[in-house]
Amino acid sequence: MGAVTVGNVTIGDGNFAVIAGPCSIENRDQLLEIAKEVKASGAVILRGGAFKPRTSPYSFQGLGEEGLKYMKEAGEAAGLLTVSEVMDSSEIELVASYVDIFQIGSRNMDNFSLLKRVGKSGHPVLMKRGYMSTIEEFLLAAEYLLKEGNTNVILCERGIRTFEKLTRNTLDLSAVPIIKKMSNLPVIVDPSHGTGRADIVAPMSKAAVAVGADGLMIEVHPNPRKAISDGQQTLDYQAFAALMEEVGELRAFLYNQQPFKPMAKLKAL
Amino acid sequence: MGAVTVGNVTIGDGNFAVIAGPCSIENRDQLLEIAKEVKASGAVILRGGAFKPRTSPYSFQGLGEEGLKYMKEAGEAAGLLTVSEVMDSSEIELVASYVDIFQIGSRNMDNFSLLKRVGKSGHPVLMKRGYMSTIEEFLLAAEYLLKEGNTNVILCERGIRTFEKLTRNTLDLSAVPIIKKMSNLPVIVDPSHGTGRADIVAPMSKAAVAVGADGLMIEVHPNPRKAISDGQQTLDYQAFAALMEEVGELRAFLYNQQPFKPMAKLKAL
Amino acid sequence: MGAVTVGNVTIGDGNFAVIAGPCSIENRDQLLEIAKEVKASGAVILRGGAFKPRTSPYSFQGLGEEGLKYMKEAGEAAGLLTVSEVMDSSEIELVASYVDIFQIGSRNMDNFSLLKRVGKSGHPVLMKRGYMSTIEEFLLAAEYLLKEGNTNVILCERGIRTFEKLTRNTLDLSAVPIIKKMSNLPVIVDPSHGTGRADIVAPMSKAAVAVGADGLMIEVHPNPRKAISDGQQTLDYQAFAALMEEVGELRAFLYNQQPFKPMAKLKAL
Amino acid sequence: MGAVTVGNVTIGDGNFAVIAGPCSIENRDQLLEIAKEVKASGAVILRGGAFKPRTSPYSFQGLGEEGLKYMKEAGEAAGLLTVSEVMDSSEIELVASYVDIFQIGSRNMDNFSLLKRVGKSGHPVLMKRGYMSTIEEFLLAAEYLLKEGNTNVILCERGIRTFEKLTRNTLDLSAVPIIKKMSNLPVIVDPSHGTGRADIVAPMSKAAVAVGADGLMIEVHPNPRKAISDGQQTLDYQAFAALMEEVGELRAFLYNQQPFKPMAKLKAL
Repeated sequence: MGAVTVGNVTIGDGNFAVIAGPCSIENRDQLLEIAKEVKASGAVILRGGAFKPRTSPYSFQGLGEEGLKYMKEAGEAAGLLTVSEVMDSSEIELVASYVDIFQIGSRNMDNFSLLKRVGKSGHPVLMKRGYMSTIEEFLLAAEYLLKEGNTNVILCERGIRTFEKLTRNTLDLSAVPIIKKMSNLPVIVDPSHGTGRADIVAPMSKAAVAVGADGLMIEVHPNPRKAISDGQQTLDYQAFAALMEEVGELRAFLYNQQPFKPMAKLKAL
Repeated sequence: MGAVTVGNVTIGDGNFAVIAGPCSIENRDQLLEIAKEVKASGAVILRGGAFKPRTSPYSFQGLGEEGLKYMKEAGEAAGLLTVSEVMDSSEIELVASYVDIFQIGSRNMDNFSLLKRVGKSGHPVLMKRGYMSTIEEFLLAAEYLLKEGNTNVILCERGIRTFEKLTRNTLDLSAVPIIKKMSNLPVIVDPSHGTGRADIVAPMSKAAVAVGADGLMIEVHPNPRKAISDGQQTLDYQAFAALMEEVGELRAFLYNQQPFKPMAKLKAL
Repeated sequence: MGAVTVGNVTIGDGNFAVIAGPCSIENRDQLLEIAKEVKASGAVILRGGAFKPRTSPYSFQGLGEEGLKYMKEAGEAAGLLTVSEVMDSSEIELVASYVDIFQIGSRNMDNFSLLKRVGKSGHPVLMKRGYMSTIEEFLLAAEYLLKEGNTNVILCERGIRTFEKLTRNTLDLSAVPIIKKMSNLPVIVDPSHGTGRADIVAPMSKAAVAVGADGLMIEVHPNPRKAISDGQQTLDYQAFAALMEEVGELRAFLYNQQPFKPMAKLKAL
Repeated sequence: MGAVTVGNVTIGDGNFAVIAGPCSIENRDQLLEIAKEVKASGAVILRGGAFKPRTSPYSFQGLGEEGLKYMKEAGEAAGLLTVSEVMDSSEIELVASYVDIFQIGSRNMDNFSLLKRVGKSGHPVLMKRGYMSTIEEFLLAAEYLLKEGNTNVILCERGIRTFEKLTRNTLDLSAVPIIKKMSNLPVIVDPSHGTGRADIVAPMSKAAVAVGADGLMIEVHPNPRKAISDGQQTLDYQAFAALMEEVGELRAFLYNQQPFKPMAKLKAL
């Protein structure tokens, strides 16, 4: 009840999972390094975009299948599950052959054709809230997956569009306790997209823990300033490791859980 | 420049086109009747949903291919072009084989995979503004079509999501003159979805004419109260005929155009 | 019913009134000139801010009482009524002694203390919709005035705050027919603040006429680029005269009214 | 730096302050009881509305000066500071004579006339963010107070208006760390108005602590279902006491502070 298990990772029911990685997959060696680093800090799932939904068709559109191959290799090498976005029903089999969890992006939350087909695939899904969707619409979109028999659904609050200009989106943390009252699905929080600001990812992550989220999704890159996309909201390795330590200790305090083990190891060094 | 021509219909460059029909295609006989009626009032394109994007998976999802067949038959019988939504790249060929113009729905405006494939198809497209999209994002989404070489693109303002509760959306008529300054594409207005209220479709339609729109998209049904979907924003035949008369005369006054001919005929009766 | 009469000007019940003038009153001679010019083009009420509500306390705050004196003089010289904002209950008597109509600004629509006192004053009021207020809240705010016995209330749609960035606000023209169904008060439209863009004031003004508004409020300045505030949304004399001509003819066509007389005179020249 | 001290209470610089009490002051005995109860649970400031800004003029408008007298008496009896809203510049002296801290309500954040006069008064101020205001506008509004020499300013994030319907407002917790980067003023959070839902006040309060807020403002009433206003977002004594315990322990863990002493006492019982 209330949890999704993929491989050896359970999300929900007291199990907190951190997903980390770059916005876009840029090249093989970098992704292998990122995977190793985020694993060392306590992440259990590697994220990375191969097919990128970009506002402009003239922006970088992602490495495509090549990127997915790197994901598979990097996840296996580091001992991490992988998640990447599927943007079109014609790519479902392709993406499923490389990554453990589909991501339904914010712009596709109400792409009901895609949802139906992803639902039929039975493949685990991380579904992001549409950035202009109500919580009720979010839960009804999840029903498109559940109705086809796919119950391996993880929800992700990632901010909604408002008039505020100092953040990219307004991260709606109230969605977490509300969804928990209305649904059994695990809910994680993406403070990277939810704020668009690396400088407040840490406090918003702690707030997500305090509000009862089942996990976090964090953008990490060795050199955020040089990232192909979303650098302004991306943490470097050091900031991510520090965040994981804080988050792990807060989890331990609030929910009587062990801090992330890899973190403990880091401390011992 | 600034116009799209499909069959014998030109939209833009002073040519005003009215698209009308039911939200959902319900059955063959009704659609044939609606087509005949809206044609008589001056419409030149028949609209009707076969694949319906519904917030809940438990709502009516449309007649599918059967509905498309009715569209083709009704359009031919009445002498109207047809437009219907394509929701998934796997349905592009199917939908293209039945209708003259693809509709990209508001929820799919940023489904960039779909846009690329629709762009490659070269089939005429009516693209609705995402209800959560800025004008700039709308124009960049159109670039996904244009970049693939498909220039038969008609834009449609259909309202944006705001905090206002007495309308389903806030119809952003300022988008029309702004887009006309930034793009050569024709722009039409959908006051049915844009307001969600049949009782104000007429004044908002006249405002759309005054602001310079190249056409209108209006939901029409013989008995709006019994429509399967969107009845509250749908006109009956009589209201639609009256609207067309007003719109035609306003067009004639503002732009020295002939009133819609079929309207003139109606008057003669 | 449905009209407000102040002096020799009636707004509503088929009487269309144009309010024009600068955002801020800058100096005496300029205001006298503006008053004469807008009168010549057909305006019947002069607007001008003496107490300016500015987001920053370090921005120009208005000329205060000195500005009000110029308003009185300019209105009398040109044969125009005057309207200016009252921002605080302590200024009610002062402002009333100089101008014919109070303006309640968008930021003060829910300043209920002020509304009660303005309601008690009985002085005619032009109340702007709060830029983040629903139509229902707008009408309830008007009730604060009406409840105190002040029925000389003119409502003004002036745009609401949305996520759109190419306009300062999103002008919600649907508010006009909706308010007319729910209230007897006259409703005018302010396309200057409603869009923030001088280049689309004309089409949005015509749309306001088409949708049934009872008047317009337009910012006019001899040299918009040098205006102290809001220059980007302000028309110069020539653009205003051209707009008035278009608006007057559209009014004449749609509602069988005479074009603005001064306009006819201009044409004769 | 970064703290405001009123009487024996400091807010900011590591000092966390909880403000609690009813939305509206209803009667003397009830307020005396509430004051005693919230003090026992750890609150240091009593809140209560005497002049109520209500959307409709036909709703309960508050007890006025009578309510302020009860506030003074209840605050003194329980050993609490008091805060109540000042809605009009003509009431500044009156309100100041009864309560320790002015509240500037969300609807009055951009009532700049009021801000200037409150700034001149020098009286401590709790200023709520306008529900339609950006963070930048919020900080500029505070400048209206600071510019007049009043530095005893506490800011309060209380939710912004969005399209979401399951909450009254969307509580923007990202405002807290952003304001702390841009200003030295202490920032508290009002999860009662910020969510409009008593059932999620507790998780959102803990999130506010985690994100670095300097205090909380919580609506408390002996029988929320019978409260004259805002009952659906109000905690009863028991829920408030439980919340204070959780918040106190979280503060102690995160910031090495003592839990609220009165809470410790409760535990000993």
